[in-house]
Amino acid sequence: MVRRPALLFPILVLMVALPAQAEEGMWLFNEFPSATVGQQYGFTPNARWLEHAQKASVRLAGGCSGSFVSKDGLVLTNHHCVSGCVQQLSTADNDLMANGFVAKAQSDEVRCPEIELNQLVEIRDVTDRIGAATQGLSDAAYMAALKTEMSRIETECVQGGKWRCDVVTLFQGGAYHLYRYKRFQDVRLAFAPEFRIAFFGGDPDNFTFPRYDLDAALIRAYENGKPARTPEFFRFSKAGAAEGDLVFVSGHPGRTQRLLTIAQLAFQRDVVLPARLARLAEMRGLLTEFARRGDEQRRFSTDWLFGVENAYKALKGRFEALTDAAQFSLKVADEDALRAKVAGTPDAEAWDAIAQAVVEHRQFIDAHNLVENAQAFPGDLFGIARMLVRGAAERARPNETRLREFTDAALPSLEQRLFSEAPVHPELDQILLTFGLTKLRELLGADDPIVRKVLGKDSPQDMARDLVGMTQVGDVAARRALWEGGQAAIDASFDPMILLARLIDDDARALRTRYEDRVESVIRKASETIARARFASAGQRGYPDATFTLRLTYGTVKGYQERGRTIAPITHLEGLYLRATGKDPYALPPSWLDAKDRLNPRTPFNFASTCDIIGGNSGSPVINRKAELVGLIFDGNIQSLGGDYWFDESVNRAVSVASPAILEALKTVYRADRLLKELTR
Amino acid sequence: MVRRPALLFPILVLMVALPAQAEEGMWLFNEFPSATVGQQYGFTPNARWLEHAQKASVRLAGGCSGSFVSKDGLVLTNHHCVSGCVQQLSTADNDLMANGFVAKAQSDEVRCPEIELNQLVEIRDVTDRIGAATQGLSDAAYMAALKTEMSRIETECVQGGKWRCDVVTLFQGGAYHLYRYKRFQDVRLAFAPEFRIAFFGGDPDNFTFPRYDLDAALIRAYENGKPARTPEFFRFSKAGAAEGDLVFVSGHPGRTQRLLTIAQLAFQRDVVLPARLARLAEMRGLLTEFARRGDEQRRFSTDWLFGVENAYKALKGRFEALTDAAQFSLKVADEDALRAKVAGTPDAEAWDAIAQAVVEHRQFIDAHNLVENAQAFPGDLFGIARMLVRGAAERARPNETRLREFTDAALPSLEQRLFSEAPVHPELDQILLTFGLTKLRELLGADDPIVRKVLGKDSPQDMARDLVGMTQVGDVAARRALWEGGQAAIDASFDPMILLARLIDDDARALRTRYEDRVESVIRKASETIARARFASAGQRGYPDATFTLRLTYGTVKGYQERGRTIAPITHLEGLYLRATGKDPYALPPSWLDAKDRLNPRTPFNFASTCDIIGGNSGSPVINRKAELVGLIFDGNIQSLGGDYWFDESVNRAVSVASPAILEALKTVYRADRLLKELTR
Repeated sequence: MVRRPALLFPILVLMVALPAQAEEGMWLFNEFPSATVGQQYGFTPNARWLEHAQKASVRLAGGCSGSFVSKDGLVLTNHHCVSGCVQQLSTADNDLMANGFVAKAQSDEVRCPEIELNQLVEIRDVTDRIGAATQGLSDAAYMAALKTEMSRIETECVQGGKWRCDVVTLFQGGAYHLYRYKRFQDVRLAFAPEFRIAFFGGDPDNFTFPRYDLDAALIRAYENGKPARTPEFFRFSKAGAAEGDLVFVSGHPGRTQRLLTIAQLAFQRDVVLPARLARLAEMRGLLTEFARRGDEQRRFSTDWLFGVENAYKALKGRFEALTDAAQFSLKVADEDALRAKVAGTPDAEAWDAIAQAVVEHRQFIDAHNLVENAQAFPGDLFGIARMLVRGAAERARPNETRLREFTDAALPSLEQRLFSEAPVHPELDQILLTFGLTKLRELLGADDPIVRKVLGKDSPQDMARDLVGMTQVGDVAARRALWEGGQAAIDASFDPMILLARLIDDDARALRTRYEDRVESVIRKASETIARARFASAGQRGYPDATFTLRLTYGTVKGYQERGRTIAPITHLEGLYLRATGKDPYALPPSWLDAKDRLNPRTPFNFASTCDIIGGNSGSPVINRKAELVGLIFDGNIQSLGGDYWFDESVNRAVSVASPAILEALKTVYRADRLLKELTR
Repeated sequence: MVRRPALLFPILVLMVALPAQAEEGMWLFNEFPSATVGQQYGFTPNARWLEHAQKASVRLAGGCSGSFVSKDGLVLTNHHCVSGCVQQLSTADNDLMANGFVAKAQSDEVRCPEIELNQLVEIRDVTDRIGAATQGLSDAAYMAALKTEMSRIETECVQGGKWRCDVVTLFQGGAYHLYRYKRFQDVRLAFAPEFRIAFFGGDPDNFTFPRYDLDAALIRAYENGKPARTPEFFRFSKAGAAEGDLVFVSGHPGRTQRLLTIAQLAFQRDVVLPARLARLAEMRGLLTEFARRGDEQRRFSTDWLFGVENAYKALKGRFEALTDAAQFSLKVADEDALRAKVAGTPDAEAWDAIAQAVVEHRQFIDAHNLVENAQAFPGDLFGIARMLVRGAAERARPNETRLREFTDAALPSLEQRLFSEAPVHPELDQILLTFGLTKLRELLGADDPIVRKVLGKDSPQDMARDLVGMTQVGDVAARRALWEGGQAAIDASFDPMILLARLIDDDARALRTRYEDRVESVIRKASETIARARFASAGQRGYPDATFTLRLTYGTVKGYQERGRTIAPITHLEGLYLRATGKDPYALPPSWLDAKDRLNPRTPFNFASTCDIIGGNSGSPVINRKAELVGLIFDGNIQSLGGDYWFDESVNRAVSVASPAILEALKTVYRADRLLKELTR
C-alpha cells in the first residue's frame, strides 16, 4: 500500500519542476491546469470547486491523507493509516486489529493518542521574503539564513499554536509557499474493520491488482470535546465510478524524485536502496519469528512487521524500476540532451557538482543513517530519549536557530507524540535495539570510534537488555518531568537511555551538519540551476515534485495489460469470496463469512485509475466532477512504484476502495447504522 | 571467511582464460609459471616440488580445501570447514561447538558422517575426445552430446567407485581435463577448538584484517578402519613466515567470474546479487530470533546462521565491488577495446548473444531459483525427498542420459549424504520451509500456476507444519527403503514430502532445461568465442577461472593501506587478549583465559599475503619454498571479495592462521600431546 513511512523530522524535501505529459502530474491547488482538463474532458474545475476540494481534504500528520465526509468532522481514511491507533487501543483481551471496531454511539468513539489532522486553509507565496533573506549567501551561511527565515515565517503564522504552518520549498527553490493548516489533535476512532478484510491478501497481494480490500476507517475530529464543525466535506456517491469516468484525487503525495540526475539515480540504485532493502529484509525475518513467541507478541508487533513488509515491497519496486535498463537510458538521454544545450555556460557545472556531492555522501551515509537518523537505535525508547535530550538544548536557544523539529511551529506535534499514552513494548524495543546496535558495529566496524564509544566492552544484546530494562522514559510522567525540567533535569539524569542519547549527540549533530553543508546545500543549489535550465528549455513550469503537501491529480478509471493479460479496472464483492481460502492472508473474518448471502455480489469493490499518486496519498478521496466521493485510494500497482522516478501512463495505476463497497459493508456487514446515516444524509 | 557455499549439485562452471598480471593468478598445477616465479624470486618450483604439493593437498567435497600434515592421514583444515560435523557430533549434553574437541587417543577420533576427502592423483587432457563427440552440433544437441561424453569418460575412470572422476571445463571450453581423485569417505574428527576462538570476532571481524582466529581443525582419513597411509604430506614450520617471504597456496578456489561481459556484470549487480542479499538478510533475521527460542535451538541453528552471515557478507563485498564505478568502467573500457578489435567479424556477435541470454534468464530466474534450485523448499527434508524422487527416475536411465548429479560417478557422494546419520531438526526445517514457501508466493505471485499447485488453499506455515510433521524421510531406514525400492517404492509412497517433490518435478525439470538450453548453452558458446578472441588479442593463455579444482597461487607476506592507515601483515597472540571483551563474539573460551600466562605473547597468530584466493580456498595450506606449512588460509579481507571479478594486488589480501600459533595452541592450551608429536616428528 502507498503508506508513507513515518518521518522522524519534517524533512526539507528537494523539489523541482516537472513538465507534465498526458495525465501525469501532482498539481498544486493554486496552479491546477483546469483549462487542459476542460479541453480533454469537457469539464473545467472552477475556483469554488477547487476551494471546496481543498478544504474537504485533510492530512494525517503521521504520513497519510483523508477527507471530511460529514459536516460533523467525520473523516474517511485507510485502515492502514490508523492501524497504529487501532493497535494502541487494543488489549490482550480485545484485539481490535483482529476484531474490528464500531462505535455504536458517539460516546463510544475513542481517542487516538497520536493522530493529528491538518486541514489546509491557506497557501501564501513567500518566495520574495526568502529571497531577500538569503541574497548573496552560499553554502553554510545560505543554509543558516534560509532556515532562520523559514522558522521566523512559520512562528509568525502559528499565532501561539492556533495554526500549523509550514514553509514548503517548491520547484527546487524556485518558489517558497507558506501552508497554513487548521490543526486537530483530538481525533477519535469511529470505525475500523478487521485487519483480515482491510488487508485481505496481505503482503502477497500488496501493490497488485485486481484487489479485494476494505482498507477503510472512519475517525472524527473533535474540538473542545465535541465533534468539529466541518461544513466543507465530500458526499458519498452511492453509485461510485464506472470504467472510463474522469476522476480526481486530492491528497498528499509524500515524495517523488522525478528530476534526479543520473548520478543521483545511480546512487539510489547502487547504494541507498540496496542498503535499505537489506535492512528491511533482515528486520522482517526478525519480526516474523518474534511474532511466534506468542499471541501477545504477535499482537503488538503486527504493525511494525506490516510497515516493514510494506516498505520493503515499495522499495523493491523502486529498485526494479531503476534497474530497468531501457527506462534508465531514457533518463540518460534526457540528461545528455539538456546538458548539451547548456554546454559552455556556467550552468553546465551543476551536474558535476551534484555528482561530487553524491561521492561525498557515499563516504558517510552509513554513519549518518545509523547515528543521526538513529537507525542504530530503533524502537520507541531511544526516540523518546533523544527528543528529551535535544529538546532541552534546543528550546533554550532562540527559535530561529533551533533544529527544525524543535521550532515553536513544530513543538505541538512533537509534544503530542512525546506525551502519548500509547503503550511501549519493552520486549519488542529490546530486540529492535539489539538489531540496531548490531548493525552499528557491522556497518562501521568494531574499531570505529563511535562504535567503541557506544559499545565499549559490551555486546549489542546485553547493552540493549540493560538499556531497555533500566530506562524510565517509557513512563509518561517520567518523561514529562524531564521535558519540563529542561537542561538541568537532563544533566542530572542517570537514566541510561538519556545517557546514551547525550553520549552520541555531538557525533550525531556533526554528521547532520556535514550532510547539510556538504551534500544537501550543494545539491539544492545545483538542482535549482538545473531546474532553471530545464524550464528555459521546456518553456513551462509544470508541477513540482511531491512534498507531502496537498495536490490534485486527475485521470480515468481504466484497466491495463500485464504479461499478455487484460486487467479489468473494477472488481466486485463476489470476487472476494472466490479468492478466500480460509488461511491468512486470504482468510475472511467471521463477520464477512456470516454476511456473504446478504451482500449484493455485484457491488463494485476496488478499482484502478490512471491518477498519478505515490506514498502519502493513502487515504486520499477519489472524487467525480460533482465532487462526490467515489473511492478511497489505498494502493498503487507494482508498476506505479517507479512513479518515484517517472510516470508511465500505460501501466501505472492507483488502486482504490469503491464507495459502494464502503456503504454496503457498513450497512450489511457491520450494521453501523449511525455512521451510515451520517454519511448518506 | 572464504567458505564456499555447499553446492547441491556439481555445477558445470563456466571458465575462461585470464591474462595474469603481477601476482594475480589461480594457476593449474600442470601449467604453473615456474619460470616467472624463478625470475622474480630466485626460486623455481620443479616438477617434483609441484607433484609433492599436489598430492599433499586435499579437497573437502562439501566445499573446502585442506592438506595432509602427517604420513598417517592427518588433515589440517579450517574449523569452519568441519563445523557441520562438529555440530552433528554435539548433543544437548556436550556441545562441541562451545567446548571444542581433542581426541586424546586415536580411538577417541569420531567419524564425521558427511565429510568426503578427495586427493588429486591425476590430471588428463580429454579435450580431443570431447571435441570429437560434439563436432558440428549446437544448442540442445550440443549440450546433450557434451553431457553424455563427460559422463562416459567419468564412468570409465571411476572403475566401480574406486576413484572420483570429474571432467572439468577449462578456458571456457577451450580445454577439458579429467581430474581423478582418490576418495576417502571414512573421515574422523581429531581436534577442533572452541567456536569462540575459531571465529573470534565473529561476523563483525569476518572478512577484515588484522585478525586473531584459530580457525583450524584436524581430521583424519581412514581406510579399512585404519589411518590412511599418506606419504606425501606437508611438514609444519615451527618458525612460520616472515614479512616479505615468498609463499604459495595450494587449494581449491570455488569460482571466479573474471571474464564476464558487461551485460553479465550488470545482471549480477542489478538482479542476481540483490535478490540473494535480500534472501540472506531475511533468513539472518529469522535465524537470529529463532536462536532465542532456547539453548538447544541456538545450538542446532548456529551453523546455518553462520553460513548465512558469511554468505551475506561475502556477497555484499561483491556487490560493493560491482558498484565501484571506477573499477566497473575499467571493465567497460576493456570490453570496448576487445569488441573494437573484432568488429566486423562473426565473433562480434558474441557479446549481443550473451546480452540476449541474460535478458532471457531474467524472465525466469526467480522461478528457476525457487523451484529447480529448491529455494522455495529450504531445509534438509525436502532435499532428501528430491534425491529419492529423482534418484528413482534417474537410476533407471542409461548412465549417459542422467542428470549429472545421478551419474554412476556421482552416486557414492550422494549416497553418503543421503544415508548420513546426522540428525535432522524438524523445528528448524519447519521455519525454513515456511520461509521458502512464503518466498515462492511472494516472488511468483499468488496467481502463478506453480504457486497454486503447491499451496492450493493452504498457507505456507500450515503447509510446512504438516509436511515436516508427517514426513518420514528424516528417518535413515525409511529413506533407505525408498532408495532401494526404486520407482515402485516412490510411486507407492504417500509421504507428503515425497508427494511434494513429485508434484513439482516436471515444472522443475522444465525450468532446468530452459536454463540449460536458452541461457547456459548460449553463454557457453559465446564465451568460448570471446575467450578465443581475447587469447588472440593478448597472445597468451594465462589461467582459467576458478572451478573448485586444485590451483597453485603465489605471493608474499605483506601489509596494505586502508583509510590512510598502514596495516601490518602479522598479528601476535598478545593482540588477542587486548581485543577480548568478555562478550561474544569477543569472548575467549575458558581454556584460553586459563592459558594466557603460559603462552608466548609474541607468537605470530594470523597473517596477510598477496596470494590470489577466493571462497573454496578455506583450509588451504600456505607453504614456503621448502614446501613447509607456514599457514592455513581461512579468510580474505573485504577488499578481496571483488576477486570474483578482478584482482587488485594493492589491497587484495589472503588471511591465514600462522603455523606457530597452531603448534603453540595444541601444546599450551589444549595439551594435545599426541597430535602435536605427530605434527612435529
